[in-house]
Amino acid sequence: MALVQIDEYGPWTVTPAPRRETDLQSLQAELFAELSSFVGERDGYAFYGRFDNMVAVTNGRDPESHRAFQRRVRNRYPVTVSVGVGRATTPVDALGAATEELQAAGSAQADDRREVFGVAERDLPAEARERVTVAHFDVVDATGSLTDRVNAADATLAVRRATLELATHLREAHDSVAHFVGGDNVIAVCPDLDAAAFDEAITHVREASDIELQVGVGRGPTAHAAGDDAKEALEVCRETGTRIRGVDRVAADD
Amino acid sequence: MALVQIDEYGPWTVTPAPRRETDLQSLQAELFAELSSFVGERDGYAFYGRFDNMVAVTNGRDPESHRAFQRRVRNRYPVTVSVGVGRATTPVDALGAATEELQAAGSAQADDRREVFGVAERDLPAEARERVTVAHFDVVDATGSLTDRVNAADATLAVRRATLELATHLREAHDSVAHFVGGDNVIAVCPDLDAAAFDEAITHVREASDIELQVGVGRGPTAHAAGDDAKEALEVCRETGTRIRGVDRVAADD
Amino acid sequence: MALVQIDEYGPWTVTPAPRRETDLQSLQAELFAELSSFVGERDGYAFYGRFDNMVAVTNGRDPESHRAFQRRVRNRYPVTVSVGVGRATTPVDALGAATEELQAAGSAQADDRREVFGVAERDLPAEARERVTVAHFDVVDATGSLTDRVNAADATLAVRRATLELATHLREAHDSVAHFVGGDNVIAVCPDLDAAAFDEAITHVREASDIELQVGVGRGPTAHAAGDDAKEALEVCRETGTRIRGVDRVAADD
Amino acid sequence: MALVQIDEYGPWTVTPAPRRETDLQSLQAELFAELSSFVGERDGYAFYGRFDNMVAVTNGRDPESHRAFQRRVRNRYPVTVSVGVGRATTPVDALGAATEELQAAGSAQADDRREVFGVAERDLPAEARERVTVAHFDVVDATGSLTDRVNAADATLAVRRATLELATHLREAHDSVAHFVGGDNVIAVCPDLDAAAFDEAITHVREASDIELQVGVGRGPTAHAAGDDAKEALEVCRETGTRIRGVDRVAADD
Repeated sequence: MALVQIDEYGPWTVTPAPRRETDLQSLQAELFAELSSFVGERDGYAFYGRFDNMVAVTNGRDPESHRAFQRRVRNRYPVTVSVGVGRATTPVDALGAATEELQAAGSAQADDRREVFGVAERDLPAEARERVTVAHFDVVDATGSLTDRVNAADATLAVRRATLELATHLREAHDSVAHFVGGDNVIAVCPDLDAAAFDEAITHVREASDIELQVGVGRGPTAHAAGDDAKEALEVCRETGTRIRGVDRVAADD
Repeated sequence: MALVQIDEYGPWTVTPAPRRETDLQSLQAELFAELSSFVGERDGYAFYGRFDNMVAVTNGRDPESHRAFQRRVRNRYPVTVSVGVGRATTPVDALGAATEELQAAGSAQADDRREVFGVAERDLPAEARERVTVAHFDVVDATGSLTDRVNAADATLAVRRATLELATHLREAHDSVAHFVGGDNVIAVCPDLDAAAFDEAITHVREASDIELQVGVGRGPTAHAAGDDAKEALEVCRETGTRIRGVDRVAADD
Repeated sequence: MALVQIDEYGPWTVTPAPRRETDLQSLQAELFAELSSFVGERDGYAFYGRFDNMVAVTNGRDPESHRAFQRRVRNRYPVTVSVGVGRATTPVDALGAATEELQAAGSAQADDRREVFGVAERDLPAEARERVTVAHFDVVDATGSLTDRVNAADATLAVRRATLELATHLREAHDSVAHFVGGDNVIAVCPDLDAAAFDEAITHVREASDIELQVGVGRGPTAHAAGDDAKEALEVCRETGTRIRGVDRVAADD
Repeated sequence: MALVQIDEYGPWTVTPAPRRETDLQSLQAELFAELSSFVGERDGYAFYGRFDNMVAVTNGRDPESHRAFQRRVRNRYPVTVSVGVGRATTPVDALGAATEELQAAGSAQADDRREVFGVAERDLPAEARERVTVAHFDVVDATGSLTDRVNAADATLAVRRATLELATHLREAHDSVAHFVGGDNVIAVCPDLDAAAFDEAITHVREASDIELQVGVGRGPTAHAAGDDAKEALEVCRETGTRIRGVDRVAADD
């Protein structure tokens, strides 16, 4: 996992005077589009996080390759970014290691901390490096139950509630990182979980937010490979009414 | 309020085969950057919503001007958008009216519903049209308490929890629309509320998520005018430790 | 006419070390896309010029509105721009006036000349301000004679030769500004010329470069209005084999 | 060399009605920015050519990798592109081979020719594949003699005249592809030429256009590697007043 942090962004947004909000929104969105493209070319996945702190999943890539993203930002945007790369057995640990690389180099708002680049590895069995699990969730019949039916304000809140409950559960129970990716979709990067774990997650969300999710799960050497399998599995869910697809296939699909 | 909805987006993302996730993420982010620029030029504000359903606040503008955004998307992107514009006394009602314009024209995933454009107005006193209130919230010392201290996964969850509690409260108590805008910032579009209402909102978030917010409030003929005042007021909060600034100034600042 | 000049761009491209060429190319293209969008929203036209010096045709707009473009660039790109706006009876004079505004403020590569904004007007009869003539040229059967037939290197050279001969002629004979706009298209901003002038221009290009052009001409209060008419007129040329269309209609079309 | 051609672009620009010119300009510029980024990540160079026909120099890369660019365009833009890749001993031959791949598949404006992908190789000694020569030209003191002195219209024409004379000469004499890259810069992709050839080219441009050029030359396994050396060599020209730098160093620098 890589953490991409805009350097000194808070101060920049108000120097010399508060910058126009829509310009900031555009800048942030463009930066994320850039990261997503960059990471996508390398078969990874990217999440916008808090925009000033974005997250990339780049298994199987040389950490040094992230420096190219720093260069692109420096040459194309009015801000610079620091990048921490962490490797560990769980996504949360990896992101923790990445976070600490940046924190150790100084505050995100320190004016002498620019374009930090750090790589950290937590004790990691060799075989663990090679596979990542991606779970792609969406809301069962979101169009029929939300988009075409309720106020857009409420549809957004409902999806956000489901996302937050899911992400919190997966973080606490399985050291996973889950993120909203648009529409009614949430993608989680996980350790190797079984169908029961996903069933529990879906049940948790249903109870906490009254939203019914389904999930496709894939596993592979890169986030893209795993995620593509997850998307295909989710398509099968949509077509067949299965709620969980792609792991422990016999158990999950019956 | 305007609701911008990508036409038939769900089917498009999987036709002829599931498209690459990072390409979808880039596309969505670019579309939002485009909307934010477009709306910003017109002194409005835009929120990414669920990305396939984005929201714009465009008080004081001719609703017809939104057609220019439809044209831009048609000419620059592989998708088209439908736009509903609603006017009402509260943001949620306005967004509801906008939503209904689109829902009445057919399903978001219907293949014969493309580039719908609708304008609705709910009984609206003339004076109400002229002013909008923007409240700009952020987390007290987010850099020190979150960014520089905890795992980025947990920092994101904390901010999202605070955002969701705030947005849910403001929607239920005050028919307001609140949205995360990056970092630790949340912007709400509200009716004309007093300091007590904001105090209650901040207290609610503190109790529900243990996150301490501060807020600057502005009021003006456009979201940009109101929002700029709100940002300036928030700067004063940051400098002085005041929690609420910009409304009922005497009461709020003491 | 407005001249948009990147501040201190030469030094920036090699500081602290020569920047990656493809990053510079992307940056320049994005900046022009931004200008073209910005100007398009205001019913003007933009030309990429030399990329570090771009040109906009913004008749009928308040010169002050160009400051918004400076702000956008400052907030979204790693460079800043200076803008000179000139008004005169011919496009070349107007661009000359705009150029002098910037030259008077210091060298394009001076490190203390940033975000200059200047407006100049040369003695201009009131009625002249209100109309602009746009001529839209393309190569007769470019697809059949160039794209589908010759080496792409030669097709590009042929179109560039025709463009340069046309632009040089129109500048010398009619104080007009002509620019390549992609494919086999050249757009000229002109004073109010008659069909004979365009016939002479086409003849000149045929003799100098052996390329046969056709042209649609429009006139209106903004470049967009005039240009739309020009494009429609050019469509008629394509369909009917007429070489000049849209001015002095009786004379030109017979 | 790769030729990237927008499919059926002419018809698209006028269907169902002529599209807004500034939208087309933005689209074209964004597509080129995308290509330049894509190619830059792979250590190549890209030229905008005629925008609807763009050129990439991608020595040392698997031709199949260009399919990823087709996918990106399909997923992010309202148009699709065809790509021909050619390898030969000279740049013009390579681009010719690439062009023929597309021409053989049908007309650029045929509605059944979409996303063609073809690779051609002309008899090519193995050692030739491994190196490319990049020559980076600019105008001696362009800022002082053009930008800061003459009308921007004339500065553009002067640089375009020099570019065209240079590109035509290099194409005819050395089967090279030269292209304007912004400001007063022209980049040529060449076979392995000696200093005398560059001296002749510079003399030709001086005589034909009265513009004085200088050039840095580099040679390497990729356009980026060669181009970076060329840029460094050009910096030395700027500092020392040398006109040609980087090839046959003793001869050229004396």
